[in-house]
Amino acid sequence: MKIAIIGATGMAGKAIYNEAAERGHEVTGIVRSEARGKEILGSDARLLVKDAFDLQKDDLAHFDVIVNAFATLPHEAYRHIDLTAQLIAQFRETSEPRLFFILGAGSLLDENDQPFIETIRTMPGADQFIAIPANQFKQLEFLRNVDNVNWVAVSPSLEFVEGPKQKPVIGKDHLLKTADGNSRSTSTTVAVAILDEIEQPQFKQERFTVSD
Amino acid sequence: MKIAIIGATGMAGKAIYNEAAERGHEVTGIVRSEARGKEILGSDARLLVKDAFDLQKDDLAHFDVIVNAFATLPHEAYRHIDLTAQLIAQFRETSEPRLFFILGAGSLLDENDQPFIETIRTMPGADQFIAIPANQFKQLEFLRNVDNVNWVAVSPSLEFVEGPKQKPVIGKDHLLKTADGNSRSTSTTVAVAILDEIEQPQFKQERFTVSD
Repeated sequence: MKIAIIGATGMAGKAIYNEAAERGHEVTGIVRSEARGKEILGSDARLLVKDAFDLQKDDLAHFDVIVNAFATLPHEAYRHIDLTAQLIAQFRETSEPRLFFILGAGSLLDENDQPFIETIRTMPGADQFIAIPANQFKQLEFLRNVDNVNWVAVSPSLEFVEGPKQKPVIGKDHLLKTADGNSRSTSTTVAVAILDEIEQPQFKQERFTVSD
Repeated sequence: MKIAIIGATGMAGKAIYNEAAERGHEVTGIVRSEARGKEILGSDARLLVKDAFDLQKDDLAHFDVIVNAFATLPHEAYRHIDLTAQLIAQFRETSEPRLFFILGAGSLLDENDQPFIETIRTMPGADQFIAIPANQFKQLEFLRNVDNVNWVAVSPSLEFVEGPKQKPVIGKDHLLKTADGNSRSTSTTVAVAILDEIEQPQFKQERFTVSD
């Protein structure tokens, strides 16, 4: 399939790019810097060099799937929402491309069905980063109101880190825990789950979650 | 003040244009058709001829206030949300221009603090038009998540019709009723309320409502 990845030089984007390439898909990394794109994804990587916010419908319409792995700093976390809204507006009343959004664990529910974002708020140093999960929570609220675009979203677990590829455990709206009681998913495991979902869609206009 | 009105040839937009002009503001109607703009607003009207979705930040940044009186048909009611998100994205982390959104009565609460949209759903023929108030409801949800743009929104009453200018009655989140038990506001009365609010801001990052 023809897959484009926004934010392909980030931790998530890179893992998804590699997993897609390994499976033989025609994958394009959308990057701001060609040099950095080649450094991270390889000198022969297929790249589209453009700021995510400058992407026009014509840049994107010929892909089968667009994975939005855009990441930003907490002080401009609202850009998650703005980019999501821009992509959604461009593909209203279409079934392709399929839009794949990566949200955080902050939009999941805890074991008491309460928003896990409230637990995150109480974590040490949360004021330094809370804007990111808070905006990803709003991003999901926004997406849940969208019924005429072919979108799907995935929440990695709380710890979302580099690490070895494992068989993903898939959940729906509740935070998953690994056998050791932690909430963790590596970027390579999440990439496997995303490519599985791209190849064999199980979810439409909803969000799922992944655990190691 | 320098005021721009998106959708200036519609019922609401025209009333706001006229009220602003009458009060001596430098008002610009943003219209898709120059001919229709002059027909509705007068041959000497100050116009910016552009589709609302093609408006760039540079087209808008020099205004003090932008009133979004965009209207659309029920089958593409989602464009209310898309245009709102586009305008918000353009003016993140600014205090000017002030963005003024016109929502419907469907985002208000009834006397039992329940969303009035649920009452609208039960009205005769609601399936023909419910997409408009339903999307305006989502539009307010979207706006309520925005804390770094100078926005304000107004909900006219349930019947929003042409008619004589009256002294507006202002409310907050609950549907207001006139002395005869109806929920009604004319476009000229709402225009008075909007210009009052533009000249003497009482609300910030919230929505108010207007009744005859």
